[in-house]
Amino acid sequence: MTSPNLDKLNIVPFVSVDNMMKLVLTIGVETMIKGIADQIESDFKRWELFDKTPRIASHSKEGVIELMPTSDGEVYGFKYVNGHPKNTKEGLQTVTAFGLLADVDSGYPVLLTEMTILTALRTAAMSAVAAKYLAPKDSKTMAMIGNGAQCEFQALAFKHILGIETVRLFDIDPVATDKAILNLKDSGLNVIRTTSHEECVSGADIITTCTADKQCATILTDNMVGSGQHINAIGGDCPGKTELHKDILLRSDIFVEFPPQTRVEGEIQQLDADHEVTELWQVITGEKEGRTSDQQITLFDSVGFAIEDFSALKYLYQAIKDTEFYDDLDMIADPDEPRDLFGMVQRAKANL
Amino acid sequence: MTSPNLDKLNIVPFVSVDNMMKLVLTIGVETMIKGIADQIESDFKRWELFDKTPRIASHSKEGVIELMPTSDGEVYGFKYVNGHPKNTKEGLQTVTAFGLLADVDSGYPVLLTEMTILTALRTAAMSAVAAKYLAPKDSKTMAMIGNGAQCEFQALAFKHILGIETVRLFDIDPVATDKAILNLKDSGLNVIRTTSHEECVSGADIITTCTADKQCATILTDNMVGSGQHINAIGGDCPGKTELHKDILLRSDIFVEFPPQTRVEGEIQQLDADHEVTELWQVITGEKEGRTSDQQITLFDSVGFAIEDFSALKYLYQAIKDTEFYDDLDMIADPDEPRDLFGMVQRAKANL
Repeated sequence: MTSPNLDKLNIVPFVSVDNMMKLVLTIGVETMIKGIADQIESDFKRWELFDKTPRIASHSKEGVIELMPTSDGEVYGFKYVNGHPKNTKEGLQTVTAFGLLADVDSGYPVLLTEMTILTALRTAAMSAVAAKYLAPKDSKTMAMIGNGAQCEFQALAFKHILGIETVRLFDIDPVATDKAILNLKDSGLNVIRTTSHEECVSGADIITTCTADKQCATILTDNMVGSGQHINAIGGDCPGKTELHKDILLRSDIFVEFPPQTRVEGEIQQLDADHEVTELWQVITGEKEGRTSDQQITLFDSVGFAIEDFSALKYLYQAIKDTEFYDDLDMIADPDEPRDLFGMVQRAKANL
Repeated sequence: MTSPNLDKLNIVPFVSVDNMMKLVLTIGVETMIKGIADQIESDFKRWELFDKTPRIASHSKEGVIELMPTSDGEVYGFKYVNGHPKNTKEGLQTVTAFGLLADVDSGYPVLLTEMTILTALRTAAMSAVAAKYLAPKDSKTMAMIGNGAQCEFQALAFKHILGIETVRLFDIDPVATDKAILNLKDSGLNVIRTTSHEECVSGADIITTCTADKQCATILTDNMVGSGQHINAIGGDCPGKTELHKDILLRSDIFVEFPPQTRVEGEIQQLDADHEVTELWQVITGEKEGRTSDQQITLFDSVGFAIEDFSALKYLYQAIKDTEFYDDLDMIADPDEPRDLFGMVQRAKANL
């Protein structure tokens, strides 16, 4: 991390929603996801360096507001994210997010950004990184149950990073599938609409579940999952919210981000607290094995972890350099004489 | 808290350093401190309603980065603040801060702001609120040891809220005192320069210590403090950083913000963990007594607590209404159809 610009100590670069969209379109969705995926892999290899505080949650009747901080000793990052299932009915987003990077050496913020779009990109990147290590070799077909906000990002990540050629779509709301088909029409993917969970998963190498059910749900039952498949389960991400039948978990080799968090929020909340799981970072470093046979069912029980956001923020920090896709935010009070904060305010009279 | 503007769901009002200075100058430092003080008093009366998470600190060799969240069930707020003592030597601020308010019901951010200046105002407001309940009646003279960034704000807070007429200044660096005298020359206060700690405190009704020593220091020794004085100790605010000799503490009735935090960070880190202290909020609600005699030495061992920042943010949220002192920040992704985040990004091609 370079130091803040010494000429403009008060300024923090800010990536608005509008600029994030322009950046994504300029770089390209697939290229950007690949860039974030590379950063995630690189950061997961340094896993032990990171501060791994659990997220700090403030719960209310209608939802939760969370802060997810982490640091590698050089760079500090955090994400603000809310989750309010009832928001959709009121025309609001269920989840909104923004994030910040700071320089650990000085404590100065160096980047502020919207993170709703960036989180969608990093979630897809994370799923693809896991699948690189866990999915069957030469996977060509992915089933996607749940065709909401995350669907197209997942499809493009798996196309670009895994070489997936066909996606099979299903959603209990056909309108969601209509939307995904329209959005993917020029993607180069072979997109197939299916009419049931069973039909969707049939013949798929990889099954991605990304439904938004709040309650414990059984999107996949045991009979739907065949030997050798990789399950990328990203919809279960808080206590009481799961997507897979417990029997599937018992037949699978389970890989997770950070066990203390996944045992509370992931699919494995259905299992005993000491059920064996493998930490994905150890597979990436080579300390542990990923997929070991063609028959094995692998499950990536993903809930999203602060280090992934950190990786996305670090990628973004580099990506905006030499672009116009950020604004200068005058956020840090910087008196010429640090002890003269009062005088700085008084001297601003000249600008009134 | 009103809901976010439904016409502009993506927008979060942002108060830059420049706008904060303009707002302070337009409202007036004393009026703004009084407004924040009133909000603090009102929030301290509702103390039990608040989420009282300890601050979440990320420590490094050179400093600390902290997140200080709290919520009253309707409004959520947090402050980002760093502390890097070595920064001054590099022309950077030791402490920088920014803060955010959000609507608990929707999880949507409703205000983002610089908080370096705002924290100086709220610290002065908090000190004055405590002194209202603890200082001798009709206090007219305050000694101020430490004439750094907080000095003038304290002086004006005590003038406006307590009726202080004279401030006696001392700093080991006479340049800091020069600066304070210059800044206070039109304040209406009788400002007296003194040349030692002893001379400074002599005859004062209130002693404010706001030095920035990182190490355990003894700014005040026992012989300097006379019966009946109120001590407003704000410089000791982290482990290993204190300003008062332990014997003063043993002679004083001690009032604190939040005991679990103050026992680690405040002057009372020098005392046994069960040494009796009174929580200030209980004095404000009338459950506990503040000053009870003319001879009593009262000590407000202040370290700064998240609820005070919350109060300052709430005050600011109201204060910027119907002013031009904020910018619209496009921070929240808001697709027309919540599930169509991808489509929103694609449609932004029209704006490239």
